Amino acid sequence: MIASRVPVPVVIDFAARAFAKAGVSAGDAAKAARLLIESDLNGSDGHGIFRLVQYIGGLRNGKVDPKGVITVDMEGPATAHIDGGNALGHLVMARATEVAIEKAKTQGAAWVGVRGSNHAGAASIWASQMLPHDMIGIYLAVGSNNFMAPWGGFERLLGTNPIAFAVPGLEEPPILFDMATSIAANGKVQVAQSKGEKLPEGWVIDKQGRPITDANKVDDGVLLPIGDYKGYGLSLMIGLIGATLNGGQFGREPTDAKASNTGQAVLALQISRFGDVTAFKRQVDRVARDIRGSGKLPGVNEIRLPGDRAYAVRAERLRDGIPVPPSLRAALDKMADGLGIERIA
Amino acid sequence: MIASRVPVPVVIDFAARAFAKAGVSAGDAAKAARLLIESDLNGSDGHGIFRLVQYIGGLRNGKVDPKGVITVDMEGPATAHIDGGNALGHLVMARATEVAIEKAKTQGAAWVGVRGSNHAGAASIWASQMLPHDMIGIYLAVGSNNFMAPWGGFERLLGTNPIAFAVPGLEEPPILFDMATSIAANGKVQVAQSKGEKLPEGWVIDKQGRPITDANKVDDGVLLPIGDYKGYGLSLMIGLIGATLNGGQFGREPTDAKASNTGQAVLALQISRFGDVTAFKRQVDRVARDIRGSGKLPGVNEIRLPGDRAYAVRAERLRDGIPVPPSLRAALDKMADGLGIERIA
Repeated sequence: MIASRVPVPVVIDFAARAFAKAGVSAGDAAKAARLLIESDLNGSDGHGIFRLVQYIGGLRNGKVDPKGVITVDMEGPATAHIDGGNALGHLVMARATEVAIEKAKTQGAAWVGVRGSNHAGAASIWASQMLPHDMIGIYLAVGSNNFMAPWGGFERLLGTNPIAFAVPGLEEPPILFDMATSIAANGKVQVAQSKGEKLPEGWVIDKQGRPITDANKVDDGVLLPIGDYKGYGLSLMIGLIGATLNGGQFGREPTDAKASNTGQAVLALQISRFGDVTAFKRQVDRVARDIRGSGKLPGVNEIRLPGDRAYAVRAERLRDGIPVPPSLRAALDKMADGLGIERIA
Repeated sequence: MIASRVPVPVVIDFAARAFAKAGVSAGDAAKAARLLIESDLNGSDGHGIFRLVQYIGGLRNGKVDPKGVITVDMEGPATAHIDGGNALGHLVMARATEVAIEKAKTQGAAWVGVRGSNHAGAASIWASQMLPHDMIGIYLAVGSNNFMAPWGGFERLLGTNPIAFAVPGLEEPPILFDMATSIAANGKVQVAQSKGEKLPEGWVIDKQGRPITDANKVDDGVLLPIGDYKGYGLSLMIGLIGATLNGGQFGREPTDAKASNTGQAVLALQISRFGDVTAFKRQVDRVARDIRGSGKLPGVNEIRLPGDRAYAVRAERLRDGIPVPPSLRAALDKMADGLGIERIA
């Protein structure tokens, strides 16, 4: 069945009402709803309105604190450490990026680390917060669930810890890149699972190192990192810098932990400290065009830059609305009924 | 034939005499020699004394400027932009890390970008400079030769642009991780080429997208990125942030370029801005031990942390000397004779 389209303001309003009913203050609920839908606008369908039922569940069962107090508890001229107070990850990361941008305006660069946070949607939206300020953004997040093993190992000790970068162009769309350090993000495995599809070899292995292709057996396996030991190393370093440095959870998880204690970090880098901003953006355009103009392998029609699709999807969804497939619509209706709020009209 | 061992001070003295004879000032020659050998001490054999003949060649044929003046030409409280003046990359990066560390001491974090630089040895040595200052280091470098294509493309528009991270432990060795964004670094391909070995499928493809396994045909191919489009995206972002932001070369190369105009960047992050330093290092140890203690796949004896090998190799080489295989020894002797300096005794 085809997903029906729901106008962006309607989706935001619905999410805001749901967050508010789950105990989040009206102002924070509106802010979290707007940031939630950023993932949909970027084309990260698994990280936007799709997650609302899960977020509301977390707020209602005490896993996430609707009244969590976000505190900047340590501060240097170019750094801040934030305790997210187990609030919604979107609210914590909004604060973290605001602080990073303010500091980078005067210092040129700023690094903000976070503990006590939660899932905050698609990684690229946090790196992108820097773009309107003529800054480059980098974002690291440490998965609150472990799906990867160290290279050679078979124990789930590592998240698929993503990293995201955002760089502005002049006439070209911003270059946005985010990736999980596993070959397949866990979300992709879940999608295959929900569709009953076979997994390609190389995504998941079992205790003997053999590929698992039956999506119903992935719980017995570990996700493989990109580039063998390289993805392992990258996930490890993101974990140490994004979580351990900030007092977030990483490694073997404590069995009594209720809150995820997610660690995240963000860097804001002011372009003007390194040269003329317009000249830089023009060079970004030049590199983008070099790449678009690359000789192609047989069967390839178009070379894309990371961010191209997000840029096109945003324009299209702002105009036509966010696609809500029937199964998601049913889940949202059920959630609305349970919360006692009006369904999406 | 077995490589003979040459004591570290002898190798450093030899390299210093060679740099000085090639026109580098005595002080800089000694500094560059010491930093050159850091790559050997880290076990990065392809990036240390092995490269001396190439570096001296560059200094003598005008590709690298032995008297290149390194200038901090823009400066913010937490940033600096350095023009390397086409000096030896080791000297440029030494300056960049010194500036980053000084700034991070007062600001908590500092980002330094470089243009007009050159190859500077193994990536991990620059991230490691931060460790004695209780800082975390991150380093990005943009390869001056392009070996990779954009995903779906077949034109050499991207370097294998490496990224390195260094995080200190308390009782455990520092965790050092560096990686190229290609599956096989170009150095590995060169080694296979020099030994006449077949390349594994998946390292290099030809214009039709077919694997090249004959090491003598790699010049007709492109190196494949890790994780398919992910390694492409990572290489692109490192290029934009490490080179384009700083005015370094990236993308389609100008055909008349003599100097490499290598771009690099380094971040220093002061641990104490995010919590107690000893408590952090203890947590790093805990994560390292979680990982070492992971359940293992069949046939795996030991789970290693990135940096374990570098740590062991450093101790062993400081004690027993740097291995210099006969072919390298012959090349160094020939270079010494050409320069008119004494050979390694």
